[in-house]
Order: sequence, then structure tokens, then C-alpha cells
Amino acid sequence: MINEMFKDMTGKGSVIREFFTYANKKAAEIGAENIFNFSIGNPSVPVPQEFTDAMVDLLQNSDPVKLHGYSPSLGFDSTRKAVADSLNKRFGMNYTADEIFMTSAAAGAIAHALRCVVKDGDEVITFAPYFPEYVPYVEGTGAKLTIVPADIDTFQINFAELEKALNPNVQAILINSPNNPSGIVYSTETIEKLAKLLYAKQEEFGHDIYLITDEPYREIVFDGTDSPFISSFYDNSICCYSFSKSLSLPGERIGYMAVNPACKDAKLIVLMAGQISRFTGHNCPPSLVQLAIEKVLDMTSDLSIYNKNKDILYKELTRIGYHVVEPGGTFYMFPRSLTPDANEFCWKAAKELNLIIVPGDSFNCPGHFRISYCVPTEQVEKAIPLFEKLYNMYK
Amino acid sequence: MINEMFKDMTGKGSVIREFFTYANKKAAEIGAENIFNFSIGNPSVPVPQEFTDAMVDLLQNSDPVKLHGYSPSLGFDSTRKAVADSLNKRFGMNYTADEIFMTSAAAGAIAHALRCVVKDGDEVITFAPYFPEYVPYVEGTGAKLTIVPADIDTFQINFAELEKALNPNVQAILINSPNNPSGIVYSTETIEKLAKLLYAKQEEFGHDIYLITDEPYREIVFDGTDSPFISSFYDNSICCYSFSKSLSLPGERIGYMAVNPACKDAKLIVLMAGQISRFTGHNCPPSLVQLAIEKVLDMTSDLSIYNKNKDILYKELTRIGYHVVEPGGTFYMFPRSLTPDANEFCWKAAKELNLIIVPGDSFNCPGHFRISYCVPTEQVEKAIPLFEKLYNMYK
Repeated sequence: MINEMFKDMTGKGSVIREFFTYANKKAAEIGAENIFNFSIGNPSVPVPQEFTDAMVDLLQNSDPVKLHGYSPSLGFDSTRKAVADSLNKRFGMNYTADEIFMTSAAAGAIAHALRCVVKDGDEVITFAPYFPEYVPYVEGTGAKLTIVPADIDTFQINFAELEKALNPNVQAILINSPNNPSGIVYSTETIEKLAKLLYAKQEEFGHDIYLITDEPYREIVFDGTDSPFISSFYDNSICCYSFSKSLSLPGERIGYMAVNPACKDAKLIVLMAGQISRFTGHNCPPSLVQLAIEKVLDMTSDLSIYNKNKDILYKELTRIGYHVVEPGGTFYMFPRSLTPDANEFCWKAAKELNLIIVPGDSFNCPGHFRISYCVPTEQVEKAIPLFEKLYNMYK
Repeated sequence: MINEMFKDMTGKGSVIREFFTYANKKAAEIGAENIFNFSIGNPSVPVPQEFTDAMVDLLQNSDPVKLHGYSPSLGFDSTRKAVADSLNKRFGMNYTADEIFMTSAAAGAIAHALRCVVKDGDEVITFAPYFPEYVPYVEGTGAKLTIVPADIDTFQINFAELEKALNPNVQAILINSPNNPSGIVYSTETIEKLAKLLYAKQEEFGHDIYLITDEPYREIVFDGTDSPFISSFYDNSICCYSFSKSLSLPGERIGYMAVNPACKDAKLIVLMAGQISRFTGHNCPPSLVQLAIEKVLDMTSDLSIYNKNKDILYKELTRIGYHVVEPGGTFYMFPRSLTPDANEFCWKAAKELNLIIVPGDSFNCPGHFRISYCVPTEQVEKAIPLFEKLYNMYK
């Protein structure tokens, strides 16, 4: 008999996807140039040529039997060491290859990290607004996901609410900074305060509390933003990284889990991740892409367009009258909607103005909407009058 | 607190890997040419040049933003359609793209297929000898894996034992043909008998029983072997395929799940697989490799060496006096060990003769050993005197 739980889920579409599908349908009718699609977080700048060259070189100049052979289940030693070295050099850490586990991007990293440190019946805390896929990631382990409400004035951590939520059943905290959808980067002050609180609660509860950091936007931080390397503030930290956004490779499914060497079980946790893979049928990332990524670890795509788009949007939207907390990174912005029902607001924008933005409800933060500005700057500029029209419809 | 179940597993190494590690260590000491390593199932022939050319062409001549963008969660429509068309043409089926789900090789396909049709507390039946990873694949769903003992005279299905094992709690049967480790291909007679029995049991138990077929060796079938396309015999069948062996791409993690269109829930099961991925953090295979595989679906590597190696080994081992059931495919052979303790037998071969073979106990079939002959024919020829020496140590 088919599994009813997964069957029931097939009926429930993602709201973001509904807007995306609407945009595509409308584009087919009236032309893509007349649709201002800000719904999806797909990078809009190419991967560095060095990555393409590395891939082609491997394909043309390696023994294909070796090149396409199995990778060890934790990833290639050389790739793991290169990742550790790069993190150490950039962030003053002291990872070794044994603390790195290569994954199919951040989704794979988070799914493994959670299974390492939580089990059926445990509790995981995250903070609104958050990436909707955190729900299945956590539910897949049998643990319960507890949401700490957003501090909508800063989108930093709401510590009063976090303190209320913390209890002995909590085994892990899952954070995302720079944040999708708010674009906010947790400050050094926020991270220090979080670390101090978690150290105290570990003591009080008599067990470890792991900090799982979802960091696909780590490299997309705007000029002047305070952007600490989170793991350097807390021993029991597991950094989940993806090259999807920094190298514009979302389809190639490559990332890693890096367990803080200061965590006493760091090497064990990586070995456990290798075992967990066997249960989910999820082996490590493809051999070829692991070897190619090794060559471009310290590079990024030209990410400056996201900063430029942010500057224009933030300046113009605040001028018009929108309430926006200025993003410190990512390619998202999360203004307040002009009516409490953000869903209605976004459909109005879509249907009356061909302006595709998505409601904050999907991120458990109603009354807001997300703009994904990983688009050509020209599209941003042309959309400003539409945001102004939208504003005037409500004010 | 770390998850004790996965922690405990990190201490338990795979026996096959122990032999493989021993072989590598010894090779470093005395030279690889003096070690006759038949322990691992890594293809030994290159991928067709057409695959490499397709990869390079995509990398050099596509818009990198599009090329490396997200694939839909079920896989690219074009790839899914091409897989369906290829199966239809070759096996007289009528799959559509909607019945195909692209996966990270057979491991990903089986893990998804199982989660679609079984849940916590259900029962899945498989047949000894079997791939040891079936245990975590099934346990990961919460179901129980029941083993039907081998028919060691033929390695076809032991129907008397299967009938005893079937009960209303059984929701799925997991088979592997051509089989690792026996090399046996289930005959048309076997598959017809299995289908008939399962149809009768569905009727008797009043619920569907799914037949999950693990087919990474489907294209490695030797001259004259009867090799039916299993799904054409049973409606509720889910074919789990990998390109790892047929195209010598084990490290690239690419395969699919094809649900028989005759299964009433076929399209729904594929949609469910898309939902299941969200829980395991296991998105679909990389974009690039999906697009490249599309171009070489009807090709294989030159697999003739496996047939040649089988012919030599089967002829010589039977001449020496070993009891071997002749393989119909794969690159494995599964002779009886000359002492009931195959583990002792294989360590003797390794330590006294530098001949690396692995015990059948790992496949739940004691008293046998597996030879992986995906090696140069010269290695097979040079190893024959060693197999003869080993025989003489016991007779």
C-alpha cells in the first residue's frame, strides 16, 4: 500500500511555485519582457570560467575509469582537505579533512547534520522567517521543529522568545545567516549572545546543544556588513555550506558539512554522516564535480550585481514609503506588505501589474513579501514604477 | 546528544572493505602487480566517448547560468521522456515521462521506491544472496527486511521458502537480477512464477504488493542468457536502474526509478518520490549529468570483457574442481568455498596467495565467495594458478 503521508503531500503545492508557474504562463502569453519575475532564488551570474575549464580538463585529460569511479562515502580526501584548508585560511579555523563531509549541497548537509545530533522525539529550534524546507528536513528525523517568532524590526534573533522556547528536549538550533528571505546577516553581537546563551543552557540541561548553521549565502555579503564566521563563536557547531549561490551552481548539488574541530565528537559525527547516507540512499556528490570544485574553492562568481540591485531597490522602496529592513547580504529583500494579508497583496501585484513577488507566509512571517533580486539590473529599474503603483493602490 | 544508533554503526566496518583495504595496503608493500584483487565491483572499461563529448559540449556551448540551474525535483522533462522512450523501444513498454523519476543511481532509486510503498512496521522480502546495503535501505523506512534463503543449486528464487515468508504484512518484494553476487539472471520461468504468486497473494491479502527490481546490471548479460524485462510481467513493479555499470559511471550517481504504467498509482508514486526527496535532503541528480546521459541512453561501454573473463574463470574453476553456478550476467561469480567458513577461506587466499576474494557471509549466503572480475583479462589468467593452489590446500 502506498505511503499515505507522502501521498497527501503531493496535493499540496508550494505557494512560491504557484507564483512562479503563474509568471511562466503569463510570460508565454504576453512576452517574458513584460513580466517582472522576482519569485525565485536562482543565481543570475555565470560560474567562473575556471570551474568550466577544470571540468573540461578533467573530462578530456583523465582516465575515464578513474575519473568516474566511486568516491569514498565521505568524499575525496583531497577535496575534504582543500575545503578544510580554505576555511582555515579564510576564517582562522583549524579544520582537518576528517571534519569535512562532502554533500549534495546544503539540503544534503542539513539533512545529515540533523540526523547526526537529533532523533525521534527530540526538538529543534529555528527562527522565523525561515526557509520552508526546514520543516521536512526536521520532520524526516522524527524530531519536532519549534519556531521562534521573528523580530520584525531587525530580523536579528528574538532572544526573549528564544529563552522561552529553550527546554531540555532541544538538541539543536538551526540558523540561516545571511538569511533567506530577509537578507539579514546575524551580527557579531547576535552570534556572541547566542553562543553565550547556548553554553549556559548546555550547562543547565547537562547535555550538548548543537548549532547547525545553514550558510549558502555566506559569500554574498554587502559592503560594510558585519559578517562573523559563526562556527568560530561556538564549539558544538556544524556548518552546512553549498556552492549553489556563491558559484552559481544550484543544479550541480555540491556542498559540505564542516564540524567544528572544537566539538569533542567532531570526527565521529562525520563518520556517522557516512553511515546515515546508507539509510537515505544518498551517497556523496558526484566524483567529477568534487574534483572540479577543489580547484575553485576560494573563488566566487561576480556577485556585485546583487549588491547593486539591493542598493537600487532599498533606496527606491524606502523613498516610495515601503518599510524595509536593509539586507546585509543574499539576493533577497523582505519588505512589509501594505495589507496584513500578504498573499492577497502578492496576487494583486501579479495580476494587476505583472509584478511577481511572494508572500512571507511561506516563511512563517506573515505581513511581509519577498523580492528575489537575482535578476538583471534593468529588470529592477523597470520594476520600480510598478512597486510605486502597487504602493499607491493601498495608500 | 549524538544519535547512538548511527554512532554504534561507525565502529562496524564492512567485511568487503576490510579485504579491499588489506589489498591496497599489501599492494603498496609488494607492488600492485603482485596482488590479484577481485574484491570490488568497480567497472574496468571506459564510458563511451560520446558521453564525454556530450559533457564537454554542454560545458562549452551552453549558457552556464541555465546549464547549472536547478533541475525540477523529478528531473528534467526531456531526460525523463528520453528514458521512457528508450525503455519503450527496447522492451515494448509504454512508459511516459510522468512514470520516470531521476535519481542518484540505484541507491537513490531503491530508497525512494521503498519509502513510496512501505512505512514503519511493514515488511519487505528479499532473497539471499543479496547486496548488503539492502539492510539500511529497508531499515531507513522503518520496515522489517525478511530474507528468503538462497537456492544454492541455481540461485533462482526459492519458491517454497518465499511462500512460507509471504504474509499480509508484506508490502514489497525487492529483487536484484542480474544478481550481485551470484551473477545469476532470473529466467522468464522464474519471473512468470513470481508474478503469478504475487498476483494471487494480492488477491488473498486484499492489498497491493509491489515488486521493486534493482537492475544496475541489466545491460551486462552474457551470450545466450534468457533475460526478461521484469516489469513487463507484473503491474505493480518499480524498476530501479543505475548507469553506474552499463556506462561505467559509478561515481557520477545517475539513475532512475521507472514505475510501471500498468500500476494504477504509477504517476502518483512518482510525485510522492519528489516529496520524499525533501525529507532526506536528497534532491535529484545534477543538471549537467542528466542532460549528458540523455544523449547516450541506448549506448553501453564495451562490456564484452566481462563475458570473456566469465568464460575463462568458469571454465578453469570448474576444471580445477570448484562448484560454481555459471553466471548469466554481471561481473561477479559466486563459487562454493572449500570449507564452510568462507571468511577463513578468503583470508587464507589473501594472506597466503595475495588473491583477494570476499566471503559470501556479507551477502547472507555463507559457504560461498564472490569473485569480482571487472579487471583486465590478464589478471584473470594470471590468477588461475592461484585458484588452483587454493583448491589444493583444501583437497
